[in-house]
Amino acid sequence: MAKVLTSRSENYSQWYNDLVIKADLAENSAVRGCMVIKPYGYAIWEKIQAELDRMFKETGHVNAYFPLFIPKSFFSREAQHVEGFAKECAVVTHYRLMKDEVNGGLKVDPSAKLEEELIVRPTSETIIWNTYKNWIQSYRDLPILINQWANVVRWEMRTRLFLRTAEFLWQEGHTAHETSDEAIEETRKILDVYSTFAEEFLAIPVIKGLKTESEKFAGAINTYCIEALMQDGKALQAGTSHFLGQNFAKAFDVKYASREGREEYVWATSWGVSTRLMGALIMAHSDDNGLVLPPALAPQQVVIVPIYKTPEEYTATCNRAHAIKDSLKKLGITVKVDDRDTHKPGWKFAEYELKGVPLRLAIGPRDMEQGTIEVARRDTLTKEVIAQDQLTTVIPALLDTMQKDIFNKAFNFRAQNTFKVDTWEEFLIQVEKGGFISAHWDGDPATEKLIQEETKATIRCIPLDSSEEAGQCVRTGKPSFRRVIFARSY
Amino acid sequence: MAKVLTSRSENYSQWYNDLVIKADLAENSAVRGCMVIKPYGYAIWEKIQAELDRMFKETGHVNAYFPLFIPKSFFSREAQHVEGFAKECAVVTHYRLMKDEVNGGLKVDPSAKLEEELIVRPTSETIIWNTYKNWIQSYRDLPILINQWANVVRWEMRTRLFLRTAEFLWQEGHTAHETSDEAIEETRKILDVYSTFAEEFLAIPVIKGLKTESEKFAGAINTYCIEALMQDGKALQAGTSHFLGQNFAKAFDVKYASREGREEYVWATSWGVSTRLMGALIMAHSDDNGLVLPPALAPQQVVIVPIYKTPEEYTATCNRAHAIKDSLKKLGITVKVDDRDTHKPGWKFAEYELKGVPLRLAIGPRDMEQGTIEVARRDTLTKEVIAQDQLTTVIPALLDTMQKDIFNKAFNFRAQNTFKVDTWEEFLIQVEKGGFISAHWDGDPATEKLIQEETKATIRCIPLDSSEEAGQCVRTGKPSFRRVIFARSY
Repeated sequence: MAKVLTSRSENYSQWYNDLVIKADLAENSAVRGCMVIKPYGYAIWEKIQAELDRMFKETGHVNAYFPLFIPKSFFSREAQHVEGFAKECAVVTHYRLMKDEVNGGLKVDPSAKLEEELIVRPTSETIIWNTYKNWIQSYRDLPILINQWANVVRWEMRTRLFLRTAEFLWQEGHTAHETSDEAIEETRKILDVYSTFAEEFLAIPVIKGLKTESEKFAGAINTYCIEALMQDGKALQAGTSHFLGQNFAKAFDVKYASREGREEYVWATSWGVSTRLMGALIMAHSDDNGLVLPPALAPQQVVIVPIYKTPEEYTATCNRAHAIKDSLKKLGITVKVDDRDTHKPGWKFAEYELKGVPLRLAIGPRDMEQGTIEVARRDTLTKEVIAQDQLTTVIPALLDTMQKDIFNKAFNFRAQNTFKVDTWEEFLIQVEKGGFISAHWDGDPATEKLIQEETKATIRCIPLDSSEEAGQCVRTGKPSFRRVIFARSY
Repeated sequence: MAKVLTSRSENYSQWYNDLVIKADLAENSAVRGCMVIKPYGYAIWEKIQAELDRMFKETGHVNAYFPLFIPKSFFSREAQHVEGFAKECAVVTHYRLMKDEVNGGLKVDPSAKLEEELIVRPTSETIIWNTYKNWIQSYRDLPILINQWANVVRWEMRTRLFLRTAEFLWQEGHTAHETSDEAIEETRKILDVYSTFAEEFLAIPVIKGLKTESEKFAGAINTYCIEALMQDGKALQAGTSHFLGQNFAKAFDVKYASREGREEYVWATSWGVSTRLMGALIMAHSDDNGLVLPPALAPQQVVIVPIYKTPEEYTATCNRAHAIKDSLKKLGITVKVDDRDTHKPGWKFAEYELKGVPLRLAIGPRDMEQGTIEVARRDTLTKEVIAQDQLTTVIPALLDTMQKDIFNKAFNFRAQNTFKVDTWEEFLIQVEKGGFISAHWDGDPATEKLIQEETKATIRCIPLDSSEEAGQCVRTGKPSFRRVIFARSY
């Protein structure tokens, strides 16, 4: 069978694009930079959403919904925020079309110009803090722990499916607190939710860390992040949690009467992950045959393919396949029987490999006689024949094993591609090879910028678990007290 | 305790607004016509979404996501569609803001004008059919049964929370079929899903019917709808399912190779319900004390309020309340214990009445001695004392009974407010009183328009279950073959 994907070694970037399209995950739309998320891709996103939503609710958060549009003037209120978002936003200026008598078709009705332009939200801090102003009078109204599932728009010039699109789907949490400590605790708690989700569901090991001043969110005091390493040695920021201090409370004049009866500005956090996680999921585990999905997020965990030549064999194998499906479904496993008579088994095998279905079961006439079934693992591409009457114990255990194995593979890959580097020569060599570079940095944004200009590598984060260690900046030789993680990134 | 709501008899419209605000369901935002859906309102919407999503999936549909923006030119493709939506749409013309050196703040950057304006989707037929063109080559690619959960924007001039807002949340199904019959069957199947959902979950009886030519969706051949009657005698359209024929396939040139090897245009349906259902839910059942929620959609089905004077009583009643909560939770019932010591029981009672929690349990020192508990129903405002050890049988049964009783009450209200009217004099009197008017109509759009101008009543639908019956049009006296439903509406 001809390979449907460009191989990773040949062209990693093309491999990714091929895979997203061929596995029916997403495609580009008629609108520049906006994607269509196809049913199979969306089914994975729904599983991501369901798990995260459960985790947010278990940590005391509730969902709500705020407007898509933000009045232009709101953006001017927080000085750094405007710098970050004004240059790449979709602006609504009119509210009506009319017939274009000259050129045909439709044109904007000039009489329907908005008094104040509206921005399609790139993120919702401003509209939400303008709303919180009315909700918060006293410490009794705090904390507010709200999350929103929404679409947002950032007018990116270079877009890539899932990784960077003009419109994307995400969740954005926006919380309000009495004290700085409580807000910081919330920021860290969510970082833990994100890293737990990444490691246990996406099966992607992540480094928890702090962004540098130049990489932090526009309007934040501190941005915490989780950083993952892709198979091509590039880093991907998989989630961020911001401690906003009192910046937005001051910009929108949100004060509360404290327990001591004083008027205080409210403390804030915001945090989000997006459909970008789909890109991370794809790139972290997949291979030249297609998608590799961790069982925890696979829309179909098991597919059963009947093998037959005669109509009698077709009936018999299909019946057995459906019986097996029913027994596995009772265990909470999602199973599909592909009993289409229009496609050959080999075609089906390739299709489910491409789509990353974790386990493929094949049952033929000999299996019917012997009470056996062939089980193929997507991650290792290995097969074994087992007894049918052991399926209800073997399959759940195997799915658990695969979830762990896929994580461990990614963990080992990262371990093998994380390098302690202490000289600039070594840095220059390593940065071309890819991977995480753990190196000393003098803490100066100018040095950070210089390194980026010279190597395209950025500081991904200052890891939270890095212990103090004296050293010299890898670029300037100036004193440094801890290592940071450099990498080229998505 | 002072009433927090305007009464329905005093001012129904103000009662509705008061209720939406005071029960913490939604509020107006800083953006004209756009609402903030607050956590309690959103929790109800999440329950609506979960049930509908399950029903769509059980009937073979999958979810996907299409772009928020639609190129302006797409709207000109389908002649009726453009008439319906061009006059009330948000238009994106630019993609960047810049500093306004003259006036301060920000202004649109004139150099960042889009080549073609983008419309914020008011509905997605055009962008979706433009996408389907690439997905459909042969009958093997059909049917496509896709649903999308999304936000949409229609620039309404007069808005009301949930009922009519510039931005609202909804689901929109878009299906593609080989034959006209199959598409019509799909349209009707979804109408059944909607009516089942309305009656079994929202507890609102609905009339299934067909819209007249002038009331149908812009671009449809036929629009089916479910129509509900609110307590003020006005009708509310609660969901629509459109048979689009080949209109959009022709507009976007979507053809398929048929089983007979011919090139044919694809047949289409679309269907949707929105956050408007929240308005229906509120108006159908609620009373002057606040929201009345059917148990099937209540975020909290049961609240337990401890009654105490001493710290010992507080501890004892709270402990018992939590034990009861745990036993009910095991039955899948959502329960909250309000053990706040900062609010009095009377305040809590009023609060949960306002928020429509179906069952309120109160447990005091005497109950502790006697093993009893007070159970109060929100719908009837009746109370009874029962034995604590019967709660796990009584409560589930009571929630089921309430769900049915709330539906029956609405059903009886509708029966009492549906009138067969055969003369114009009677029509004029009845229309002022409100309710559904079942009357003969000559089938002429001009008559329909005349009646609307004279009475503000519109034809809500031609009921599907109306049998043929000869009669004379209530307005013109011309021949008619079946009755239709008139009402003033939301």
